[in-house]
Amino acid sequence: MPQGRVTTTPDDGLTTRQRRNRPLVIVHTGEMKGKSTAAFGLALRGWSQGWSIAVFQFVKSAKWKVGEEEAFRALGAVHAEHGTGGPVEWHKMGVGWSWTRKRGSEQDHAADAAAGWAEIRRRIEAGAHDMYVLDEFTYPLKWGWVDVDEVVEVLAARPGHQHVVVTGRDAPAALIEAADLVMQTTKVKHPMDAGQKGQRGIEW
Amino acid sequence: MPQGRVTTTPDDGLTTRQRRNRPLVIVHTGEMKGKSTAAFGLALRGWSQGWSIAVFQFVKSAKWKVGEEEAFRALGAVHAEHGTGGPVEWHKMGVGWSWTRKRGSEQDHAADAAAGWAEIRRRIEAGAHDMYVLDEFTYPLKWGWVDVDEVVEVLAARPGHQHVVVTGRDAPAALIEAADLVMQTTKVKHPMDAGQKGQRGIEW
Repeated sequence: MPQGRVTTTPDDGLTTRQRRNRPLVIVHTGEMKGKSTAAFGLALRGWSQGWSIAVFQFVKSAKWKVGEEEAFRALGAVHAEHGTGGPVEWHKMGVGWSWTRKRGSEQDHAADAAAGWAEIRRRIEAGAHDMYVLDEFTYPLKWGWVDVDEVVEVLAARPGHQHVVVTGRDAPAALIEAADLVMQTTKVKHPMDAGQKGQRGIEW
Repeated sequence: MPQGRVTTTPDDGLTTRQRRNRPLVIVHTGEMKGKSTAAFGLALRGWSQGWSIAVFQFVKSAKWKVGEEEAFRALGAVHAEHGTGGPVEWHKMGVGWSWTRKRGSEQDHAADAAAGWAEIRRRIEAGAHDMYVLDEFTYPLKWGWVDVDEVVEVLAARPGHQHVVVTGRDAPAALIEAADLVMQTTKVKHPMDAGQKGQRGIEW
């Protein structure tokens, strides 16, 4: 069921087909875990299209996304074994980025975040993947570890057909401005308000 | 990273462990596709815990969730083949519920929805699954095809440790009241507003 309706026809010289296949910058911001969860749901859909999916986790807490990581690694293995879906890469800052040899020893989070962005920039400029999930990437932007203007420029200039999904609270205004789609999650009711502890399978 | 903090300790006589493992009723409501997408993201996490996952889609539009369906069927196959994760069932009303023989001929959507709920009720009462995703289930509730008071009663009385996630716009007040966790998605910016068509891998 369509969740929205086209209300205007833009005067951008593109055909409907071109507009249909435009690569998107998507931002999920707001409260609660829904923003990452929805980003991974989107990546599921991309995987089933046969897209190359790359996830970069920017917050040092290996515990919290193990469920999604395991599921996506399983899907990557399904692709490798049966050709169904697309390839999956999953990189996380918390234990040292997967493409470097240095693991766990590096304590400079700002340098880690900058190294992560530098690698993502290289990949975007090379058109390496079809969909990037930059999970909790708003935090290094907010803390000034990665320059938001540089990010916006790289996204605007990216070649080919690469979708980029950014999650995290307090997305900077310049990123919101640059995005095609922005979803905000709002907490209406949360069990932690009633003393419920975080639990396995729900919170991680 | 914790996304919330326990602000009160409830006087419910439960131990921390019991509270940690309390089964939840979760509602994702609001605008845009994020609500289903986040529900499937949650199911990913449950799958990796080895949980039995059952998805029931209540809206007749087979096209729109094929990506998620394919990914979850692949994960179900991974479980069957390698024992990783949990089993997955995916049922949809649009082509006739999978557990019935009657397919495609039935045009009575209200009866289809009621038959779907009757089966879910049987399963919940039997403790058949660990996590249920009732996708777009708010619509049959809104349209009076399924009685919301009955749903609330069945959820309140459900045995064992079964999580139930309901998605869709305009969740009825009684369901919100009965839920432990309610997430609302808000559209900040959507490409359809700028004339962008729905596209493969993003919208379905």
